Amino acid sequence: MRGKQSAIDTFLQTHLNKYIDETSKLCEQPSVSARSEGTRECGQLVAEILKNHGLQVQSIPTPGNPVVVGRLKGRSPRTLLCYNHYDVQPPEPLELWTSPPFKPTVRDGALYARGAKDDKGELIARLAALDAVRHAYDGELPCGVLFVVEGEEEIGSPHIAQFVQENISILKCDGAIWEEGGIDSAGHPVNTLGARGILAVELEVDSMKRDAHSGAAHLLPSAAWRLLWAIAGLKGIDERIRIAGFYDHALAPSQVDLEMLATLVSDEAELRAQFGLEKFVRGVTGDAFKRAVFEPTCNVQGMWSGYQGPGVKTIIPAKATVKLDFRLVPNQDPKDIFEKLKRHLDKEGFSDVKAKWLGAMWPAKSPGDDPLVKLTTQAADEIYQKASYLVPLAGGSSPIYAFAGPLKISVVTAGIGYPGARTHAPDEHVRLNDFLNGARHIARIMDGFAGLKQ
Amino acid sequence: MRGKQSAIDTFLQTHLNKYIDETSKLCEQPSVSARSEGTRECGQLVAEILKNHGLQVQSIPTPGNPVVVGRLKGRSPRTLLCYNHYDVQPPEPLELWTSPPFKPTVRDGALYARGAKDDKGELIARLAALDAVRHAYDGELPCGVLFVVEGEEEIGSPHIAQFVQENISILKCDGAIWEEGGIDSAGHPVNTLGARGILAVELEVDSMKRDAHSGAAHLLPSAAWRLLWAIAGLKGIDERIRIAGFYDHALAPSQVDLEMLATLVSDEAELRAQFGLEKFVRGVTGDAFKRAVFEPTCNVQGMWSGYQGPGVKTIIPAKATVKLDFRLVPNQDPKDIFEKLKRHLDKEGFSDVKAKWLGAMWPAKSPGDDPLVKLTTQAADEIYQKASYLVPLAGGSSPIYAFAGPLKISVVTAGIGYPGARTHAPDEHVRLNDFLNGARHIARIMDGFAGLKQ
Repeated sequence: MRGKQSAIDTFLQTHLNKYIDETSKLCEQPSVSARSEGTRECGQLVAEILKNHGLQVQSIPTPGNPVVVGRLKGRSPRTLLCYNHYDVQPPEPLELWTSPPFKPTVRDGALYARGAKDDKGELIARLAALDAVRHAYDGELPCGVLFVVEGEEEIGSPHIAQFVQENISILKCDGAIWEEGGIDSAGHPVNTLGARGILAVELEVDSMKRDAHSGAAHLLPSAAWRLLWAIAGLKGIDERIRIAGFYDHALAPSQVDLEMLATLVSDEAELRAQFGLEKFVRGVTGDAFKRAVFEPTCNVQGMWSGYQGPGVKTIIPAKATVKLDFRLVPNQDPKDIFEKLKRHLDKEGFSDVKAKWLGAMWPAKSPGDDPLVKLTTQAADEIYQKASYLVPLAGGSSPIYAFAGPLKISVVTAGIGYPGARTHAPDEHVRLNDFLNGARHIARIMDGFAGLKQ
Repeated sequence: MRGKQSAIDTFLQTHLNKYIDETSKLCEQPSVSARSEGTRECGQLVAEILKNHGLQVQSIPTPGNPVVVGRLKGRSPRTLLCYNHYDVQPPEPLELWTSPPFKPTVRDGALYARGAKDDKGELIARLAALDAVRHAYDGELPCGVLFVVEGEEEIGSPHIAQFVQENISILKCDGAIWEEGGIDSAGHPVNTLGARGILAVELEVDSMKRDAHSGAAHLLPSAAWRLLWAIAGLKGIDERIRIAGFYDHALAPSQVDLEMLATLVSDEAELRAQFGLEKFVRGVTGDAFKRAVFEPTCNVQGMWSGYQGPGVKTIIPAKATVKLDFRLVPNQDPKDIFEKLKRHLDKEGFSDVKAKWLGAMWPAKSPGDDPLVKLTTQAADEIYQKASYLVPLAGGSSPIYAFAGPLKISVVTAGIGYPGARTHAPDEHVRLNDFLNGARHIARIMDGFAGLKQ
């Protein structure tokens, strides 16, 4: 094994620039799923790239963007699934990017581009790992691999659960490596066992046929005011969500979760510095800071109504809109929350506020004592030479739930990130050394996966 | 007098198309003061037009757009001031216009364009009246006229009060005809003795350095939520404004005001139909509907934060903005209200919400028994052959206060409008017959003004 690992590491170090170039090429292709910008072309490009790396590729249509599936058999019948996505978040606001989001640029030891880390860089790092392992084993992998690369993760993976159900026979596998993962601000590898769910909703009010002169504001109903009052009633200044029954099924962290959380080095100082904050919401710090992820949220993604230009426009807006997302903890069900939201609005007298379901993911969490989880943490300990941490629940959401349940597998992250990577924000980037270590990490998992005892 | 009036009416009827063409030409020139679009060019065009009608013209600079002043002496030393403005509201939303806002189009007996009624049509109708009276009197007007045409009315006339103070010697006059005015939905002439004031304010929150991933919404402060909570606290669902001391100086309607209101034919059914409403704010109807104008308001002109595109973007917005206007009743002072607003925000824990003064006008109201007011209503009775009504207070705002106080004059409206004219909205228009009657009305006032007893 030691000889294989050395060959793998040397291969990856030697060919790092080639894989960064490959990541750049993939990032140059916009793939903004929120507005269907370049996703078709990007899906085709990913299929080509997987073929070039020797995988057997299928592009499987869904009602949205196709899912690209790549397969390569190994010596062992055991198969490791790698989940990634080829779509990215919208790049706006463009003026805050140092270099354009779709002109990948290497500077100060990092590759800057929309998708450089999330998730195009991770996909290429895994293909690099695959190349390296195959090279070390003279062309044949120790275990089978199954790449599943979807194109709608950034809009909430609306079709992935159905995709898994419909293709369950070809997705049979023995464990999955999820996207995300990497190191914390002190360089400790951090991987994750689950993710919160999400419910994304648009609320809209049409209060009258058209905008009116604000000189009639004592008479004519304002869509902006109706929406403001409705939203403000969803959550108190204490951050407590006021929808009746909202917390009914929310699972509190278990003793094991609390123990995992206790081992984590807090990145709260770094996070405060990054966003220029004196304190966090509700003033949480220390243990409360770590535990806060077990609180479900109600977030405003965006809102708009009326006049947004310079100066003054004396109108009463006839229309107002808000996009919300609720992050849900284990056992909360987006469908149940959506029904409770609608009931809340009706009950509070806001039947004029129309709620539209934009998308959802369910929460999911894998057990901490799974062999794949242990392999992942041990491999990380070796690569990074620092103690590895496990996060019981990520703050974000992912379609882990769509795979973990139906395929009866454990899922753990392993990736190339660090807290300053500016995921979803201007100047998203991946550090080249993180890319290299992430690829080495995945390679060790591919190397060891065949021998795991279930 | 009867002969003169007949000559005047014949002149106006004969030349109506010429004056509609002149209005079209003026409306073709955009003049959106909110974003300084075409205002300079429009000011020059108005100066040219006034010269072409034989007035002595000065374009007087202000820190904003120049005020165009046109003067013509008459047989009597008494001078009538006509107030108009050459700027218009922004035309958005463009897609709701049947014909483009700056391509004036006559259809179904009306001229459609941004400014067709407010206020370019009114200005040209007055110049038509002037031409007609001068024609009837063989070239010399019975009284002097003084046209004051400003270019910043739609952004709250921020420089007109100072303009009047600085030019008070050349503005000396004996009464003023304001813009607005016209007929109600039953064809009764309606004119107005005053207007509410206005305070326009922008509130803004910057909660962190940049937008963040909404997976951290349990930790990172949302500008959208901070602003939502702050705004929602300004006014209850009962429409009562919650700023401490807001109503302290607000004058209730007097007995005379209530009597004037009682004579008015209500246009509530028409207004409801226009905006597709089942009922008004607070369910007001009947006398309460008429009296509601004596309630000050807090209106959202526009608000925005975060992502406004299609689909979902999982961000926490770092910035949120709202534009508000408060319509103020007699004796409320915008400066006092602005201080009270800031104190309210601080006191409620929203010192992170920054309040910016965008502009203000003070409330003003003229006495109902002034000779000019009587001349205006009698002339209207004759033109429209229906009983004339007086509105004690308009719901909108106007810089009447800037003239009425310093020049010690009474001010009354006389215009070309009707309730369906879509002022400030898409498909603004003036009906050609209203234009003609409005010009006839102004001509009678110009004819009778010299003989009024003060």
